[in-house]
Amino acid sequence: MERLRKVIEESDTTAGRVFDLSIQCLIIVSLITFSVETLPELSEKTQAWLRWIEIATVSIFTLEYFARFVVAKHKVQFVTSFFGVVDLLSILPFYVSTGVDLRSVRAFRLLRLFRIFKLVRYSKAIRRFHRALLIAREELILYLFVTFILLYLASVGIYYFEHDAQPAVFSSVFHSMWWAVATLTTVGYGDVYPVTAGGRIFTFGVLLVGLGVVSVPAGLVASALSKARDLEDSQVARNLLAREEPTERDDI
Amino acid sequence: MERLRKVIEESDTTAGRVFDLSIQCLIIVSLITFSVETLPELSEKTQAWLRWIEIATVSIFTLEYFARFVVAKHKVQFVTSFFGVVDLLSILPFYVSTGVDLRSVRAFRLLRLFRIFKLVRYSKAIRRFHRALLIAREELILYLFVTFILLYLASVGIYYFEHDAQPAVFSSVFHSMWWAVATLTTVGYGDVYPVTAGGRIFTFGVLLVGLGVVSVPAGLVASALSKARDLEDSQVARNLLAREEPTERDDI
Amino acid sequence: MERLRKVIEESDTTAGRVFDLSIQCLIIVSLITFSVETLPELSEKTQAWLRWIEIATVSIFTLEYFARFVVAKHKVQFVTSFFGVVDLLSILPFYVSTGVDLRSVRAFRLLRLFRIFKLVRYSKAIRRFHRALLIAREELILYLFVTFILLYLASVGIYYFEHDAQPAVFSSVFHSMWWAVATLTTVGYGDVYPVTAGGRIFTFGVLLVGLGVVSVPAGLVASALSKARDLEDSQVARNLLAREEPTERDDI
Amino acid sequence: MERLRKVIEESDTTAGRVFDLSIQCLIIVSLITFSVETLPELSEKTQAWLRWIEIATVSIFTLEYFARFVVAKHKVQFVTSFFGVVDLLSILPFYVSTGVDLRSVRAFRLLRLFRIFKLVRYSKAIRRFHRALLIAREELILYLFVTFILLYLASVGIYYFEHDAQPAVFSSVFHSMWWAVATLTTVGYGDVYPVTAGGRIFTFGVLLVGLGVVSVPAGLVASALSKARDLEDSQVARNLLAREEPTERDDI
Repeated sequence: MERLRKVIEESDTTAGRVFDLSIQCLIIVSLITFSVETLPELSEKTQAWLRWIEIATVSIFTLEYFARFVVAKHKVQFVTSFFGVVDLLSILPFYVSTGVDLRSVRAFRLLRLFRIFKLVRYSKAIRRFHRALLIAREELILYLFVTFILLYLASVGIYYFEHDAQPAVFSSVFHSMWWAVATLTTVGYGDVYPVTAGGRIFTFGVLLVGLGVVSVPAGLVASALSKARDLEDSQVARNLLAREEPTERDDI
Repeated sequence: MERLRKVIEESDTTAGRVFDLSIQCLIIVSLITFSVETLPELSEKTQAWLRWIEIATVSIFTLEYFARFVVAKHKVQFVTSFFGVVDLLSILPFYVSTGVDLRSVRAFRLLRLFRIFKLVRYSKAIRRFHRALLIAREELILYLFVTFILLYLASVGIYYFEHDAQPAVFSSVFHSMWWAVATLTTVGYGDVYPVTAGGRIFTFGVLLVGLGVVSVPAGLVASALSKARDLEDSQVARNLLAREEPTERDDI
Repeated sequence: MERLRKVIEESDTTAGRVFDLSIQCLIIVSLITFSVETLPELSEKTQAWLRWIEIATVSIFTLEYFARFVVAKHKVQFVTSFFGVVDLLSILPFYVSTGVDLRSVRAFRLLRLFRIFKLVRYSKAIRRFHRALLIAREELILYLFVTFILLYLASVGIYYFEHDAQPAVFSSVFHSMWWAVATLTTVGYGDVYPVTAGGRIFTFGVLLVGLGVVSVPAGLVASALSKARDLEDSQVARNLLAREEPTERDDI
Repeated sequence: MERLRKVIEESDTTAGRVFDLSIQCLIIVSLITFSVETLPELSEKTQAWLRWIEIATVSIFTLEYFARFVVAKHKVQFVTSFFGVVDLLSILPFYVSTGVDLRSVRAFRLLRLFRIFKLVRYSKAIRRFHRALLIAREELILYLFVTFILLYLASVGIYYFEHDAQPAVFSSVFHSMWWAVATLTTVGYGDVYPVTAGGRIFTFGVLLVGLGVVSVPAGLVASALSKARDLEDSQVARNLLAREEPTERDDI
């Protein structure tokens, strides 16, 4: 029992590492299967194969869920924890959808994407990214706020400049927002663009301001990432130190 | 009277916070109404509803304006202050437009957008952004200057390369500027692009230089934002210190 | 004579500042005139006006050139200096083109753009930008080198993937370079794009690498700009210090 | 023999520098030849010329390879080193392809691109770039991981929003990935874009998140580059120091 717990919850032993890697591979297989299913004109043979892979995947995930439940020291805490809920949501759609008719299945299928969150358990990368987002949180919210105001003003402005020239494309402020999104992010699909001189000069002004706003989060996240790394390094150092001199410093 | 002033001007009390939040919601409702009005083919019923919401919004904003005027310690200072003018411009268009005919109304409607500036009163975010812009002001003006020169040179250059091949699109230096704006900001709508070998090589050169210029403000604003945050933090610290030891340090 | 020199070469006095501003306005008027001339279907009246403005501009610039020559302490040094050459090239095309026929004029007209460099004399902004470029020079050359290699490899790669599917667009490695330029700079006009699965996956890979390369100069220039500012500030501080204690420190 | 080694392996002497520069020029000539060969409708004369240049290039590269082999102190080490393999792969395709028929030649031709790696030997720039990538390696892998997850989720999302409206373009999750790549990198060719209101709002959300992720590597590489530069400078300083005081510090 204790040995099983070590295999499942820790990754210090070889068996634990093999277990972790297997689950990760299975998640990726599951996501690929999910994508392949959306391909048009699949042969019946392929569909049968996909069905079998799905059944196998769900079976293993169900076993994993019960194993994790059994070895968990605090059962309730595991079930209500983030990963407990994610693990359950990864398998539940399958069992629920087998009883009902096909129409509602499509919406349920999307729930299978919850499996992607299972990857987070193994990913130091996402944890660090998460930490970086927390560090830059205040600035990112500020950025979102300013971006929304900028988008709104840009949409209203282009609506007034271009509505008469292109009533079909800029038919309302809401339709103009699509232009504002594509322009301020510099994606510029080219399905909507100003044609009047006024609209083009306005676009230039909006872009001049937008360039100083829209790319800001990249800079924020980049510097937050390096701060997060420093934080981790200092924590690792502290842990190493604490291990060498095992005094009562667990309250840090 | 003093209690009313506290509710309106401060946000320490519960009533004050409720008041602030209500006004903010009303501003956003007002902006959404403004956008919905531009939708084509609105039913008469919807138009009536929008009209009623507008009347209600303006009434409340008018009440707010008078309340702020009444509780203000320096009446003249309030009326001529930034927020006093914004509050007035948020309601004035409505009263003026009710007397005149429909043609000029459309231009007036745009004035209703001034209400977006009322949000600034409550927004720590915009104040910090404003401070960041002040910090990076000199660099941003420099960037604008260099961008204008770059745009101008790019427009003249592409005009000489592409005018003969595409006389309709690159019909003058001014028309070429639209290409320069869409290209240097990397939006690239795709409505205007060079087709000659010379024009394409020139575009490459312009972009090589442009990439080193056009994305610069994002970096400037990002670093200015973090400086502004440090400044605020140190001010908060100083205020806390000043409150603990209430000596004469108000001149800072 | 000495008073004239002060007006022309320095901007401490009111007259000097007026002189500087007038020349700057004239440069901008001259650049606008240049652009207006490229407009199609100009009336004869407008063309006559433009001609007169050009003659007036060149006359004043000629006067300015001779005034600067006269007041210059080292005549030869002025004539061979950067600004001496720019001032001459700003007026020379006019005098040369009046004698010859119209065909070669168009190439000469472009030389009038040299006037834009006259602006540099008055621009602290461009001087700082120039200093920033010098600071980041080594990194920028490195960036250019890596960008060229990346562009070349991307062009060859997409040629092999897309040549068979779109022989007209990707007809050679050189033609594919246009795609590489538009893609790696994320302009994406949409006139050239991959259609095969291989080409699209290759595009994804190229963009993953490209995003780590192409936007780098913006970061380099942004940080160089702040270094240049610090440098200027410390120089100003040193100058102030030197003025207060007038010792022999001019060798710095 | 020792003199030959100095010429080939070092660049302190004039002969060594001439040798290095000649090889570099030859590499660039070779790459240009490679590109010119892909041009359609080449005259037979040009093709003959290209053939001769190729033969000359390969001959010199072969001589260079043998010279490097001869002067190398550790023969095996040279042959198995990165540059030894690159040098061999730069000439091998030519010798192998002369014996076989034309079909497989095209794939072999691509191998000639290995010559671009020969440039690395002479390039301080690429070495520094390489060092910068090593410094930021962990963050870059993290960025790749997050980008892949973001791309996958964006593809699945847009598939569900747009599949019914545009079954031809968004026919599966894999097809939708092409949209996700072009959008998240802000290239925006304009061949694929959402048309439904849901899809457009989803695009906006994806871009808001994407802007905080996709441009991050540029910031990472820029700061890593400056760290790499500091590292080189301190190494140069240490080397200079070590030369002045030749004590046993080689273990650093």
